[in-house]
Amino acid sequence: MAQVRNKQVLLKDYVTGFPKESDMNIVESTITLKLPQGSNDVLLKNLYLSCDPYMRNLMNRPEGPPNSRAYTPGSPLIGYGVSKVLESGHPDYKEGDLVWGFTKWEEYSLLPSAQILFKIEHTDVPLTYYTGILGMPGVTAYAGLFEVGSLQKGENVFVSAASGAVGQLVGQFAKLNGCYVVGSAGSKEKVDLLTNKFGFDGGFNYKEEPDLDAALKRHFPEGIDVYFENVGGKTLDAVLLNMRVRGRIPVCGMISQYNLTQHEGVTNLAQIIYKRIRLQGFNFMDFVHLYPKFLEFLLPNIREGKVVYVEDIAEGLENGPSALVGLFSGRNVGKQVLVVSHE
Amino acid sequence: MAQVRNKQVLLKDYVTGFPKESDMNIVESTITLKLPQGSNDVLLKNLYLSCDPYMRNLMNRPEGPPNSRAYTPGSPLIGYGVSKVLESGHPDYKEGDLVWGFTKWEEYSLLPSAQILFKIEHTDVPLTYYTGILGMPGVTAYAGLFEVGSLQKGENVFVSAASGAVGQLVGQFAKLNGCYVVGSAGSKEKVDLLTNKFGFDGGFNYKEEPDLDAALKRHFPEGIDVYFENVGGKTLDAVLLNMRVRGRIPVCGMISQYNLTQHEGVTNLAQIIYKRIRLQGFNFMDFVHLYPKFLEFLLPNIREGKVVYVEDIAEGLENGPSALVGLFSGRNVGKQVLVVSHE
Repeated sequence: MAQVRNKQVLLKDYVTGFPKESDMNIVESTITLKLPQGSNDVLLKNLYLSCDPYMRNLMNRPEGPPNSRAYTPGSPLIGYGVSKVLESGHPDYKEGDLVWGFTKWEEYSLLPSAQILFKIEHTDVPLTYYTGILGMPGVTAYAGLFEVGSLQKGENVFVSAASGAVGQLVGQFAKLNGCYVVGSAGSKEKVDLLTNKFGFDGGFNYKEEPDLDAALKRHFPEGIDVYFENVGGKTLDAVLLNMRVRGRIPVCGMISQYNLTQHEGVTNLAQIIYKRIRLQGFNFMDFVHLYPKFLEFLLPNIREGKVVYVEDIAEGLENGPSALVGLFSGRNVGKQVLVVSHE
Repeated sequence: MAQVRNKQVLLKDYVTGFPKESDMNIVESTITLKLPQGSNDVLLKNLYLSCDPYMRNLMNRPEGPPNSRAYTPGSPLIGYGVSKVLESGHPDYKEGDLVWGFTKWEEYSLLPSAQILFKIEHTDVPLTYYTGILGMPGVTAYAGLFEVGSLQKGENVFVSAASGAVGQLVGQFAKLNGCYVVGSAGSKEKVDLLTNKFGFDGGFNYKEEPDLDAALKRHFPEGIDVYFENVGGKTLDAVLLNMRVRGRIPVCGMISQYNLTQHEGVTNLAQIIYKRIRLQGFNFMDFVHLYPKFLEFLLPNIREGKVVYVEDIAEGLENGPSALVGLFSGRNVGKQVLVVSHE
């Protein structure tokens, strides 16, 4: 039977503070490219891996009851990816299928059939899109805005980490819905993308604003209806002062807090009462059922160029640790993708 | 025309920090007990006034755009009360009607007819109840639990300020719904009320718990489904660590923060993402339409003794400032009512 090299990215040990490249190992083992007799599993060749901020949380030492999603030191990272089916013991998948879903940070993965994998039916768009605009980040932007955020036409929308994997879509989806949209990001290059590439009404570099409250008041003199929360901390605190009555804050992430051993205190929560604000955490897994409706909405918009997507592509599994760590210093411009193999 | 004395409680000036009795004045003016010709107003004799924590916020110097509800220095406080109609230029009210709604802290009030007043139809229960269990606090407990909190049978409920005007009802309504209920309060006497009088499953004195997280873990080993938030600050921070996945936090008040010039920082908000928690501010005015349904639910329960209500009664308008200020040191046991006149 064919034994092939299987390069992997392993977590060395639980992480405290900012993750470093040295928190991960690149190792090479071998794998037999053949399913065991009678197996229901699926054997995948991984093509593209998704680098996402939530992965940082899975590097923490689990507290309290076991968290089945937390990474295990000595084992490969797990995350969303696009893969090709090499062999399948599961009736839903067959050799040659392209799929996206949870896979491991390695060249080849043997996944239990219980794992949710989405078959990729549309290949006239870049396959990498299934790690981003057509994958978890896309559904997250869509569900967060329209379901959790109950977005109405013409409302005022603010999004942080606005050029990121989710943020760039939040803004574009809101614009398609006739909203006024402003985003914040961490460099001039990124802020320029917001207005020049994604069609936002405005944007600002939060690192150059001495007073975030003043920056928000400048862009939202009449207040914010929906704040799509990706960062937490000081930005959330300033936003709370600028929300409108019955405003909604879908909480997708708080990347500014993930690497802090002591999180920043948010002091303006009483605004939640004064303005009857709804703050709601959510994740993609609660909205998987929307995927067909989401594709129906988005694919035509992509094909007509009405929604665009900026990706930051790193080549080679050995560059995975660097690409992942870069998310937390904001080095990536757009969705960070890691190429394992182009086919 | 009859000129009578009209004792009033006025706000002296905007308040910073804890309110003091000396922040208010007792003055006596005179009022003509006769509506002007052609007036649509309603002339009321005030009987019972409600002392509520939100009133503290109306004593702040208004920031930004004018807040029409903020108190005006030199004018009487405004709040919920039970009153008798002396004369009415409005077709919905007639002499002798008993009503509850917003009125002023004075013996007699001339209110514009646009003001929402609820006619009191059921007088087999104590009239003071319309400042509490059958008034704004009652609807707040009901709407907060069932509408904002989406309470399901058998869930685990935690409520802070649990012996207060709203808290004692939150616990009893949740028990009627087959829930497990624990409350926190600020004295042994109040905690004893929770289990002995209101039928809670447990309670603790937050002032005697060195570690609120540990206290919550003791009472909720499997976590909290609904936290009815009345206090904010450290309690909210500890609760966030103990919420269950898809938990709800209806935010009714944050009394621990109202008197602080710098609010406490809440550091555990990332739990909102990890557990997909919904935190939602609300107030009575958004749920006025539920009042008939609420009465239908509650009146039989009161008559059958299945829901009880503890009131703390202060006699005389001149004792209003002391009664109101006492809320913020937790001096009141149960709903704080101020008697202006018994008839």
